[in-house]
Amino acid sequence: MSEQNTPHTDIGTLGEFGLIDRIASHFTPTQNETTKGIGDDAAVMDYGGQPIVVTTDLLLEGIHFDLMYHPLKHLGYKAIIVNLSDVCAMNAVPKHVTVSLGISNRFSVEAIDELYEGVRIACEAYGVDLVGGDTTSSPSGLMISVTAIGSAPKEKITYRHGAKSGDILCVTGDLGAAYLGLQILEREKQVFLANPDMQPELSEKKYLVGRQLKPEARLEAINHFEKSGLVPTSMIDLSDGLASDLMHLCKASGTGAFVEEAQVPIHDEARLQAMEFKLDPITCALSGGEDYELLFTVDPSDLDKVRFMNSVYIIGEMTSEADGINLHTTGGQIHPITAQGWKHFE
Amino acid sequence: MSEQNTPHTDIGTLGEFGLIDRIASHFTPTQNETTKGIGDDAAVMDYGGQPIVVTTDLLLEGIHFDLMYHPLKHLGYKAIIVNLSDVCAMNAVPKHVTVSLGISNRFSVEAIDELYEGVRIACEAYGVDLVGGDTTSSPSGLMISVTAIGSAPKEKITYRHGAKSGDILCVTGDLGAAYLGLQILEREKQVFLANPDMQPELSEKKYLVGRQLKPEARLEAINHFEKSGLVPTSMIDLSDGLASDLMHLCKASGTGAFVEEAQVPIHDEARLQAMEFKLDPITCALSGGEDYELLFTVDPSDLDKVRFMNSVYIIGEMTSEADGINLHTTGGQIHPITAQGWKHFE
Repeated sequence: MSEQNTPHTDIGTLGEFGLIDRIASHFTPTQNETTKGIGDDAAVMDYGGQPIVVTTDLLLEGIHFDLMYHPLKHLGYKAIIVNLSDVCAMNAVPKHVTVSLGISNRFSVEAIDELYEGVRIACEAYGVDLVGGDTTSSPSGLMISVTAIGSAPKEKITYRHGAKSGDILCVTGDLGAAYLGLQILEREKQVFLANPDMQPELSEKKYLVGRQLKPEARLEAINHFEKSGLVPTSMIDLSDGLASDLMHLCKASGTGAFVEEAQVPIHDEARLQAMEFKLDPITCALSGGEDYELLFTVDPSDLDKVRFMNSVYIIGEMTSEADGINLHTTGGQIHPITAQGWKHFE
Repeated sequence: MSEQNTPHTDIGTLGEFGLIDRIASHFTPTQNETTKGIGDDAAVMDYGGQPIVVTTDLLLEGIHFDLMYHPLKHLGYKAIIVNLSDVCAMNAVPKHVTVSLGISNRFSVEAIDELYEGVRIACEAYGVDLVGGDTTSSPSGLMISVTAIGSAPKEKITYRHGAKSGDILCVTGDLGAAYLGLQILEREKQVFLANPDMQPELSEKKYLVGRQLKPEARLEAINHFEKSGLVPTSMIDLSDGLASDLMHLCKASGTGAFVEEAQVPIHDEARLQAMEFKLDPITCALSGGEDYELLFTVDPSDLDKVRFMNSVYIIGEMTSEADGINLHTTGGQIHPITAQGWKHFE
């Protein structure tokens, strides 16, 4: 019960990724059952059968969601999806989730039912069982901690670190829409707060708002890979944004990469909305997060397997590490893609 | 962004166990890999090798711990232990944990290091690997979500539901000390708040305070069972208190039980401290939680295997459901043990 005079280093000086690196440096796996510890979309363990993959995410009110525009049912759904997406990013099939909730007493039983109804719908849609969790009262705010477990044959598990120069860079769907959906919801919230009689007009923004509020995990891509006998050389899910997540892939694989601006899929509504917000659509695609598409690389010999795959877009190529990570613009220029995403307005 | 006129049922009317039952009723496992879903100390899954068990706990500042007297290193240690204890309660050996943290920016990098140092010490002591997690900023308060994974041969996994009338009821260590340790810490906190110059005098209370701040998981009991070829008929870990957790065991097994007051192990310091607080020691043992001992039952034919086992106490016997759950007092009386713990002062 005494204040100690220890050094105080601000967490902000490390950032999330720096903090994770620092933690990971203190934990070296020692158990035979551990195939992959910290540092990928999910951990991989071998308990004698098919390897299992495990991932976990903590979602906090006021940080990851705003109850003014995230309906509880959608929130329950999304909390499951973001974890299933991490399992899919290992080329594995999710099977189990646990859900822990911290809830303040301002929530009614009916509100909790709503949230779990979203969890149930997601579990049913993806063939996943809820097998456990923890519920506790919270002094303030809602918090949701989900752990997802899945498995895949050892030879199919795909890590961030397998890409090599010359591999083809692909993505499973259009980018930037979830970010723009969030900007719309934020704007409508401000309008509502200024004038509570004003009801938001979101019906024309269904696609963008839907991408933010009700994302999907790309399990069908994993099933396509299985059917066509394709194993990507590396994979990651796009939660932080193309720029940031591509950098993770390149760092883990020891490669560079280039992205062809003209090939990055951007939905028409996202393009229009970006312009309405005076943003460049490619900036939204590079730096906007939460699209939960899969970013993956394939060996050039597998080109034909992805070329005609439904909802797969070839957006670039892996290069040598020395070449860095670059955007080839439609105007024919080469711009480095930076950690915070490529700054188009600089 | 509109308030809906839905019914509002207060969560308090359900309680934690009622809420869990309500949630569980909406989730029926459908996947082949699910052996046991919600309703035991851990879920059990079969991915083709040795079955794995998974459990998760969410610890919140202001609910589960008070940073005024829970040092961060101890907190990191305890957050791991309470989960390993749940794995042990399935007669399984823990192997992996994930740790997710919500941290406000009032915490320094050094403080986070302290917390993870406790996590690291627990992992090392129990032969467990930290393989993942999530770190996020928190708008207020510290929150720790841990998931633990372990495994055991199918025929050794022990559930809450296997006890039968005539089975012997055992516990792995003394009870009530963690609760009394918490009462001491609470008292010293009040003294400190009233007079910050007053430093707490805890050196004479090391055992009780230690049981609260640095609990252990009874992995050595699991190892003893293994060595002596004993498989308990049912098991649960004592997190809520003997009364409450014995009721879970009886409910799941469809039995009653009696506990012999004279046989319940209570540490001398706990006995003295209870009297100082004008509490009955047996009440502390029955209703105080967080001892993290294992409560288990064995077939009478296994009596010799437990009789001379180190740190195992035979405290009672399972009976038919109709007999209820009772305490046989040292005075020769029979008192029913109730949900909230047996009220000795009524």
